[in-house]
Amino acid sequence: MSGNTFGTLFAVTNFGESHGPAIGCVIDGCPPGMELSEADIQPDLDRRKPGTSRHVTQRQEDDKVEILSGVYEGKTTGTPICLLIRNTDQRSKDYSEIGQKFRPGHADYSYLQKYGLRDPRGGGRSSARLTAPMVAAGAVAKKWLHRQHGTVFRGCMQQVGEVAIPFESWDHVPNNPFFAPVADVSELEAYMDSLRKAGDSCGARVRVTASHMPTGWASRCSTSSMPRSRTR
Amino acid sequence: MSGNTFGTLFAVTNFGESHGPAIGCVIDGCPPGMELSEADIQPDLDRRKPGTSRHVTQRQEDDKVEILSGVYEGKTTGTPICLLIRNTDQRSKDYSEIGQKFRPGHADYSYLQKYGLRDPRGGGRSSARLTAPMVAAGAVAKKWLHRQHGTVFRGCMQQVGEVAIPFESWDHVPNNPFFAPVADVSELEAYMDSLRKAGDSCGARVRVTASHMPTGWASRCSTSSMPRSRTR
Amino acid sequence: MSGNTFGTLFAVTNFGESHGPAIGCVIDGCPPGMELSEADIQPDLDRRKPGTSRHVTQRQEDDKVEILSGVYEGKTTGTPICLLIRNTDQRSKDYSEIGQKFRPGHADYSYLQKYGLRDPRGGGRSSARLTAPMVAAGAVAKKWLHRQHGTVFRGCMQQVGEVAIPFESWDHVPNNPFFAPVADVSELEAYMDSLRKAGDSCGARVRVTASHMPTGWASRCSTSSMPRSRTR
Amino acid sequence: MSGNTFGTLFAVTNFGESHGPAIGCVIDGCPPGMELSEADIQPDLDRRKPGTSRHVTQRQEDDKVEILSGVYEGKTTGTPICLLIRNTDQRSKDYSEIGQKFRPGHADYSYLQKYGLRDPRGGGRSSARLTAPMVAAGAVAKKWLHRQHGTVFRGCMQQVGEVAIPFESWDHVPNNPFFAPVADVSELEAYMDSLRKAGDSCGARVRVTASHMPTGWASRCSTSSMPRSRTR
Repeated sequence: MSGNTFGTLFAVTNFGESHGPAIGCVIDGCPPGMELSEADIQPDLDRRKPGTSRHVTQRQEDDKVEILSGVYEGKTTGTPICLLIRNTDQRSKDYSEIGQKFRPGHADYSYLQKYGLRDPRGGGRSSARLTAPMVAAGAVAKKWLHRQHGTVFRGCMQQVGEVAIPFESWDHVPNNPFFAPVADVSELEAYMDSLRKAGDSCGARVRVTASHMPTGWASRCSTSSMPRSRTR
Repeated sequence: MSGNTFGTLFAVTNFGESHGPAIGCVIDGCPPGMELSEADIQPDLDRRKPGTSRHVTQRQEDDKVEILSGVYEGKTTGTPICLLIRNTDQRSKDYSEIGQKFRPGHADYSYLQKYGLRDPRGGGRSSARLTAPMVAAGAVAKKWLHRQHGTVFRGCMQQVGEVAIPFESWDHVPNNPFFAPVADVSELEAYMDSLRKAGDSCGARVRVTASHMPTGWASRCSTSSMPRSRTR
Repeated sequence: MSGNTFGTLFAVTNFGESHGPAIGCVIDGCPPGMELSEADIQPDLDRRKPGTSRHVTQRQEDDKVEILSGVYEGKTTGTPICLLIRNTDQRSKDYSEIGQKFRPGHADYSYLQKYGLRDPRGGGRSSARLTAPMVAAGAVAKKWLHRQHGTVFRGCMQQVGEVAIPFESWDHVPNNPFFAPVADVSELEAYMDSLRKAGDSCGARVRVTASHMPTGWASRCSTSSMPRSRTR
Repeated sequence: MSGNTFGTLFAVTNFGESHGPAIGCVIDGCPPGMELSEADIQPDLDRRKPGTSRHVTQRQEDDKVEILSGVYEGKTTGTPICLLIRNTDQRSKDYSEIGQKFRPGHADYSYLQKYGLRDPRGGGRSSARLTAPMVAAGAVAKKWLHRQHGTVFRGCMQQVGEVAIPFESWDHVPNNPFFAPVADVSELEAYMDSLRKAGDSCGARVRVTASHMPTGWASRCSTSSMPRSRTR
């Protein structure tokens, strides 16, 4: 519908700002009857959470997810699933200086032009922190797809700034702070350290694969997409 | 989405104006594999079409529907179905006088306020003629629901202006110009004739029933609403 | 989109169950720059909340709303507004017996047929409690409409079961537990008491009016509906 | 909404198959009051149309567009704009042999898996021909954006298969069948001829730019996105 809702059959509406009280999402369309608890979602959030190495934001957040709706006696009910993550390290004072400036590459300028005001606290709504609700929603989708179709998703870093990363093995991905599929990440570490010292930043390229995908996904209509009564 | 699209899984987008070149609709989401031809739709359009009695608009239209897409070798393909009805009796001269006035109970005034302009030709987009594409889309939905679930829809007139109509039998509905479920419509005829002589109009109340409806319709998610591959 | 999201430009997604941890909604599309705090919403929730007379559910809830996002320094930012209401009186034990039965007029049977499972706790998602998030979202919409257009909404009870209620004055509405526009509600009280003694329930009819409405609302496109840059 | 509707405020629903009676689209959300005729759209369709060089499909189509709705006395009315393009060179016999095979890189296999049937006539709905309605809708959007904001769109070929194309000047783009921004396209011609002789095909990369874009586009809500009455 807008930049805040993604998907139609499995629709995720993202809400929250980097330094507001909480961030989260509402998933509408998750099929009923799937076992679901916070334990299914937390590992992916832990992998995403800040403060785990010197190469990411030093903000301290536990990113504990709470399922507020859509699950009864440990199973999804087919109704909207609200996932909530409280912000605990809001540190809004730290942004007092930056409140007077626009950071290059951030969306602050667009927000100010578009809405006539701006939330300078960590980028507000455009903060990378807002990927957390999408990671949480993705964990739910992944579980359903794996259970129903055996689908497996994998991701790794392919390039950081100027540094291309060869693909050695998926096995290396969890063993370094860059999610790089290589054993030796010393070049990446040096590159990132030099960037940080220079007060600079860079873009990156990731690789995502899905295997055991069912054929013919991604639109509304399919041979089984219309609800069907079970008793005639 | 807006006042022009109805439904989500079976979404109908209506287009056209009373006196433009054509009216029609696009159905997105009709399941594949159902036999469909113009002959499935035309009877409902014939029942709706103008000029069939002195109590309805005297405009002459055949309302011939043409299926432009979404059907291959006589069967729906699951892709968008465009239904087109050409306007043949455009008579726009007849509206030269009315172009200077607002008709009470018509949407002309709202359109002028909303869009800053107005199509005076028969009410333009707010004409009752724009029910024709919805009748056509309804015929497609009815066929699928009947084939899949045995669902049957019925409708009749329940009240015209001040005149309440008792329910005698569905059998009478096709036998009078008011779709009234009674054998004797002389009171209705007299009432309508007197209205017309007085240059007046009135509202009405209809009754619509659906039987053999599957349980639990009307939202996106159901036990079978997510596409499912047929081969794992 | 589905039965859980209402509206397009000002879209409200409702979530939660009667006896889950919380209920709430996400408003996407509220214009930026409007002053908004919990104090704008709480009065409408207080009017709706249970336990205020012997004629409504005896459940005890404060229905305190919390704004989780979309507001910065007391003003809306144009980003999604999440409103949360914690359930405090969950009393799920009280439903142990009813877990074995279907209540007539409740949606339990439909849910079971549709999703293959059922949340017996107070009707789960189909509980009247789920009107609270809509009341909260409505309070936000009302404030914006009043500020922008001077629009005023009023509502009152028009009929309870067999008892029609004459309209005397809007002034009476807040002075009785039925929101009836009459000074004397003794007949309504007697009727409701007799129903309750008989273990029965009834439907009702309400009247809602909006005055100072702008002309031509209710669809996507208007003379000013496309975003416009302020600097060329 | 689905793979057939694009956009929210300016929503385009695409319909039709390569060898059905017609292809087209419905634009819902085009602002009222803009001058619009077929002459605004036809040049872009002419640039896209088949049979203009030996490097594209040899199908003969005029791709004459017809505006069926949403325009009155030469101006958009704010209501849905249906654009229709009749298929004249349907040649379905030519596909009799291919009806027995799946072409690599075509969507036939996905369609068969998804919908349980297949339209072998030129790829049916997945034909490149279905870009024509998007080109037509794009012409309408481009006109409005240029009139309102001075926005200018440009596109050119950047790579064909293995052949990278340097950027020399936009001026060259209309002067060669590859829309390449170079004066000398002999290398591209030789590459394409060799591919065709080998019965092979390749992918390509295009470059699209938009200048004079208003700030802060691409979501639903903006300072002016809510309809506003002009008279209070």
